[in-house]
Amino acid sequence: MYSINNVGWIEKDAPKAGPFDAILRPIAVAPCSSDTHVSHGGGGPFENRILGHESVGEVVEVGSSVTRFKPGDRVIVNCCTPDWEAPLLQDGFDNNAHDNWFTSSFKFVMQKDGVFAEYYHVNNADANLFLMPDDISIEDALMTTDMMSTGFHAVENADSHYGDNVVVFGIGPVGLMAVAGAALAGAGRLFAIGTRPNCVALAREYGATDIINYKNGDIVEQILELNHGQVDKVILAGGNGQSFTQALQLVRPNGGISNVNFLDPSDTIAFPAMAWGLGMSNITFKCGFCPGGARRIERLVRLIQADRVHPGKLLNVKYEGFDKIEDAFKLMDAKPKDLIKPYVLI
Amino acid sequence: MYSINNVGWIEKDAPKAGPFDAILRPIAVAPCSSDTHVSHGGGGPFENRILGHESVGEVVEVGSSVTRFKPGDRVIVNCCTPDWEAPLLQDGFDNNAHDNWFTSSFKFVMQKDGVFAEYYHVNNADANLFLMPDDISIEDALMTTDMMSTGFHAVENADSHYGDNVVVFGIGPVGLMAVAGAALAGAGRLFAIGTRPNCVALAREYGATDIINYKNGDIVEQILELNHGQVDKVILAGGNGQSFTQALQLVRPNGGISNVNFLDPSDTIAFPAMAWGLGMSNITFKCGFCPGGARRIERLVRLIQADRVHPGKLLNVKYEGFDKIEDAFKLMDAKPKDLIKPYVLI
Amino acid sequence: MYSINNVGWIEKDAPKAGPFDAILRPIAVAPCSSDTHVSHGGGGPFENRILGHESVGEVVEVGSSVTRFKPGDRVIVNCCTPDWEAPLLQDGFDNNAHDNWFTSSFKFVMQKDGVFAEYYHVNNADANLFLMPDDISIEDALMTTDMMSTGFHAVENADSHYGDNVVVFGIGPVGLMAVAGAALAGAGRLFAIGTRPNCVALAREYGATDIINYKNGDIVEQILELNHGQVDKVILAGGNGQSFTQALQLVRPNGGISNVNFLDPSDTIAFPAMAWGLGMSNITFKCGFCPGGARRIERLVRLIQADRVHPGKLLNVKYEGFDKIEDAFKLMDAKPKDLIKPYVLI
Amino acid sequence: MYSINNVGWIEKDAPKAGPFDAILRPIAVAPCSSDTHVSHGGGGPFENRILGHESVGEVVEVGSSVTRFKPGDRVIVNCCTPDWEAPLLQDGFDNNAHDNWFTSSFKFVMQKDGVFAEYYHVNNADANLFLMPDDISIEDALMTTDMMSTGFHAVENADSHYGDNVVVFGIGPVGLMAVAGAALAGAGRLFAIGTRPNCVALAREYGATDIINYKNGDIVEQILELNHGQVDKVILAGGNGQSFTQALQLVRPNGGISNVNFLDPSDTIAFPAMAWGLGMSNITFKCGFCPGGARRIERLVRLIQADRVHPGKLLNVKYEGFDKIEDAFKLMDAKPKDLIKPYVLI
Repeated sequence: MYSINNVGWIEKDAPKAGPFDAILRPIAVAPCSSDTHVSHGGGGPFENRILGHESVGEVVEVGSSVTRFKPGDRVIVNCCTPDWEAPLLQDGFDNNAHDNWFTSSFKFVMQKDGVFAEYYHVNNADANLFLMPDDISIEDALMTTDMMSTGFHAVENADSHYGDNVVVFGIGPVGLMAVAGAALAGAGRLFAIGTRPNCVALAREYGATDIINYKNGDIVEQILELNHGQVDKVILAGGNGQSFTQALQLVRPNGGISNVNFLDPSDTIAFPAMAWGLGMSNITFKCGFCPGGARRIERLVRLIQADRVHPGKLLNVKYEGFDKIEDAFKLMDAKPKDLIKPYVLI
Repeated sequence: MYSINNVGWIEKDAPKAGPFDAILRPIAVAPCSSDTHVSHGGGGPFENRILGHESVGEVVEVGSSVTRFKPGDRVIVNCCTPDWEAPLLQDGFDNNAHDNWFTSSFKFVMQKDGVFAEYYHVNNADANLFLMPDDISIEDALMTTDMMSTGFHAVENADSHYGDNVVVFGIGPVGLMAVAGAALAGAGRLFAIGTRPNCVALAREYGATDIINYKNGDIVEQILELNHGQVDKVILAGGNGQSFTQALQLVRPNGGISNVNFLDPSDTIAFPAMAWGLGMSNITFKCGFCPGGARRIERLVRLIQADRVHPGKLLNVKYEGFDKIEDAFKLMDAKPKDLIKPYVLI
Repeated sequence: MYSINNVGWIEKDAPKAGPFDAILRPIAVAPCSSDTHVSHGGGGPFENRILGHESVGEVVEVGSSVTRFKPGDRVIVNCCTPDWEAPLLQDGFDNNAHDNWFTSSFKFVMQKDGVFAEYYHVNNADANLFLMPDDISIEDALMTTDMMSTGFHAVENADSHYGDNVVVFGIGPVGLMAVAGAALAGAGRLFAIGTRPNCVALAREYGATDIINYKNGDIVEQILELNHGQVDKVILAGGNGQSFTQALQLVRPNGGISNVNFLDPSDTIAFPAMAWGLGMSNITFKCGFCPGGARRIERLVRLIQADRVHPGKLLNVKYEGFDKIEDAFKLMDAKPKDLIKPYVLI
Repeated sequence: MYSINNVGWIEKDAPKAGPFDAILRPIAVAPCSSDTHVSHGGGGPFENRILGHESVGEVVEVGSSVTRFKPGDRVIVNCCTPDWEAPLLQDGFDNNAHDNWFTSSFKFVMQKDGVFAEYYHVNNADANLFLMPDDISIEDALMTTDMMSTGFHAVENADSHYGDNVVVFGIGPVGLMAVAGAALAGAGRLFAIGTRPNCVALAREYGATDIINYKNGDIVEQILELNHGQVDKVILAGGNGQSFTQALQLVRPNGGISNVNFLDPSDTIAFPAMAWGLGMSNITFKCGFCPGGARRIERLVRLIQADRVHPGKLLNVKYEGFDKIEDAFKLMDAKPKDLIKPYVLI
């Protein structure tokens, strides 16, 4: 990214490692809609900033205080790499995306160059890298770094219990992972809202019981009829500020709404007080960002190893070679109808 | 209430008790702003409905299946009297105000005549009445039935931990109880927003460390300066749909906003997506209604018996005699500057 | 049960329904090891008490205050039928097995005749019965009433998170349901300890990743080696008071131990202070009893309807006819090696 | 500590700071019973190990990567100083005492020299030091580093809600802080078990409603009678492995037992299965160690600043001068009847 809406290759000096850091070379990367979002100015007016935050890589250098990794190690890199020395993280409530200020744990692209580079820098390496196990695929590994972690966090924030009936708005990669995560949290009936055929098929495979298509009528009415009333939880992995009114129409008193949809800075969240029961309905709103760190990756990897979910199925377009990153990025930006998510093996 | 904005005395037949019910006569009652709200049409176009839901009473009749109470017992009556046979209450998450549908556990006034009557009806008596102990005052007892329970519920929903810095919007009776409840949940710095001198004095007595007056400048700016940054939790016991933007400006990532303010049906809750961190801030919104039942009263009574809080201090205007209910009601409706809350001993 | 160790048929008057009660006739029943346990004196010296607590039935009579059911309705009967008028249940924390005193919500057999009868009595029918849906099998329905509910409660008490590695001691019917419940709560590696071939096969089908057989060496050593260290959670659905030491050897600091094993009254729970980290390890013990009520059944039924689990697979011996209850009971008591659980269609 | 039961002064080289570390000189220190416990061999056979872990200090040197502190800063030092780079801490559940293995976050004395020295070393300084505010006393500050944090953690683990009736076993410094913490968590009736007059007086001041003295009869019987039945929560800040049976006799089904008592390595925890309801009572056991880090201290300091509690009242014997540390240590070891806790101003 040279500047807003202007993307291409750039030559830069290799990054250097401080005492707790590591330098990596990428083995596999995937562009994310938040990368394309940033390239259009969504994260600020960056100049000459290298994009990319989803990666599996090889350690090429470690700082003097790094004890868990050495050059040559193949590692999964959480896209969110907190500064674990920040006291705010010690609250231990909820997630850790906000080490010093709002989303400040998300350092790739926002605070420094990203992973679409020959070499990239990872802070707090001991705490943010996870050794790639031999028994999972590189595609599954790559999808733990953001998509699976974020989608599963949506379910964590929905606080789903056995038998909760759940609606997921949006079945892009994060929404699909929210579907898989809800099934693995014991959701009962699980409504997924979307239309793209590849995504619909994967939603069913990941555990959706009903696919809701807006072309068949009002989505709220469809769900209320199929469910014989309101559901317990709604997860927003798509839509906009207006979706909250729909979510409130769908959820029962004492229920919850969990948002992981990246809203537009110009958007406003607005809903009638009546829809929230005049503020008396005990309906909770939560939102959140991808949780960071090595332990998160370890937990997600265990689910793959136990054969409970395979997030790598999201990657339905494959490129090979470092120079194909640009193609993959442009495909992600164009979002053709049959794309779920592309990736590049390097 | 004869009809909207038309209030006075009415002659009715005495209520009858089903097998699990009780009939009571009032010993002490208090009008609530939600009563006056209803009298102006806030709860629907009721006709000839008796108002009132805060009471201490004497049992005069019990149904055949009531086992815990007998005529002559003096009891505290939770203003929220769920039908405990409703399966939805079994979820046991959060509160119990919604037994069959939104706020359906709140039966006085909304579903039947209230407590401003010679005799009134209580459903599921064993589960909703609590025997009045000898060692607490009738004023303290009366204030457990709604004000203390609702104010403390605001704190429960804020999920306040030791040392959270907390802001309370509004120091009417519920807001004052939220202040007391936050102090008893281990809040650190505790900002109370309000101006009425009697309420300000009581807020300090209940544990507020700072009183914020809008006359001294923008309340958000005042608090951010005094607190050297954002707080952990915000409780809304006043304001309107626009207050959510202020609350979001005040609360840090991972923080929480708890609403017990009864919003107006014509109001809209609206805030910029930016204020909620584009839906990534991990800031939670909760709202709720006064929790029902006998066990709730028991727990609040124990706090009074342990001398940790005295909610009866809210009652700063006293009337004596059944026929003074109308005066008390009209005073509550007029809300003169030095009123906190009136009550009537019968 | 005539008396301890003396079981057979008895002639009794049909039970009568109070205002909130229902009388049912059984459609399908299953004997449970706690029935056989009681028959040997495990619940007290009952005389002429009818056994049985797992049933699907048909409503034949309802009390005057029952509103949700009518004669002819086919219903699933939670084996735990709380008196929902009991204030203690209003705490809403954890489960509801203890309405007035320890396990007092468990009324069949312990407080009145059970379900192995032509007609049986259910208290608080509106709150404790669930209408049998058309789209699930009677075997799946029958297994929600105790086995699935108890096994899943073990997982709830283990507070299992995505990617927790979990050990389940015992793969009888409850242990198998704990395995299924752990998989549906997002467990990672899932160790099930047991040897019976039918149970082992079903444990794998329900999601166990590793089967541990004591014949292959010390179970603690086997698991620590396979897991490369301690696990996150241990569920006890078998063993005895000595198993807690093994559980502590297996679980890491901050982990948890959840017991649903019915311990023997003469047993003692004992473990070295060292094993619990001298009381500093932040390892939690929880225990619990089958949660009661209609809503619980509804939630479990939804999991069956969503095709996430089929607890009816536990029932691998089928009898037909009311008079076969005795055979089924005796089979349960004898526990031949290939039995998982028997049932009787009536 | 030269060796077990052999304590005195030793000459050592000054410690050095790594990139994330700081070197401090003590301003005030307090001996703790765990120091005396270690001197008698309770933590292992240390040789020539400097004791002490409770301190307020002045920064004299910081490592190259420390950003929040500089020489001359006066700081409060959490006695538990985790390595925040350890992935296990990222689970964020419960506390953080176990960074890599059991209690491995507790580094003073157990892994390196303690604070009874002219200079001492603090790892992860940015995350483990808290700047001493001007508006609290040095005594209050010193008592946040272990006593208040541990006592309040006992209450956190008891998961105390508004109106829970609570018993605290032991009113030494930690038990007294548990009493204060329980009052600040909204306990109702609060029973404190102990006899020393100074401690009894402070227990009452901190919020105990009843003092139970074993000389007046069986403590279980006394409490059951005063409370008219079982309590909701029991906190163990004294006693031994046998105390769990008493605790279980005192606590109701669904209640909880929280241990912060440092048990003896030779002790066994044992209780009859009956006392735990045969493992069906839904009574939870939790235990824990002092939570570490700067944020913990910040939260406790806020409670002092808000005038909600003053832990410095525990310090009823004062010494002045570095060379008085030995006297203070020996007084702590002797524990005369009127001692609560000694400290040394340097």
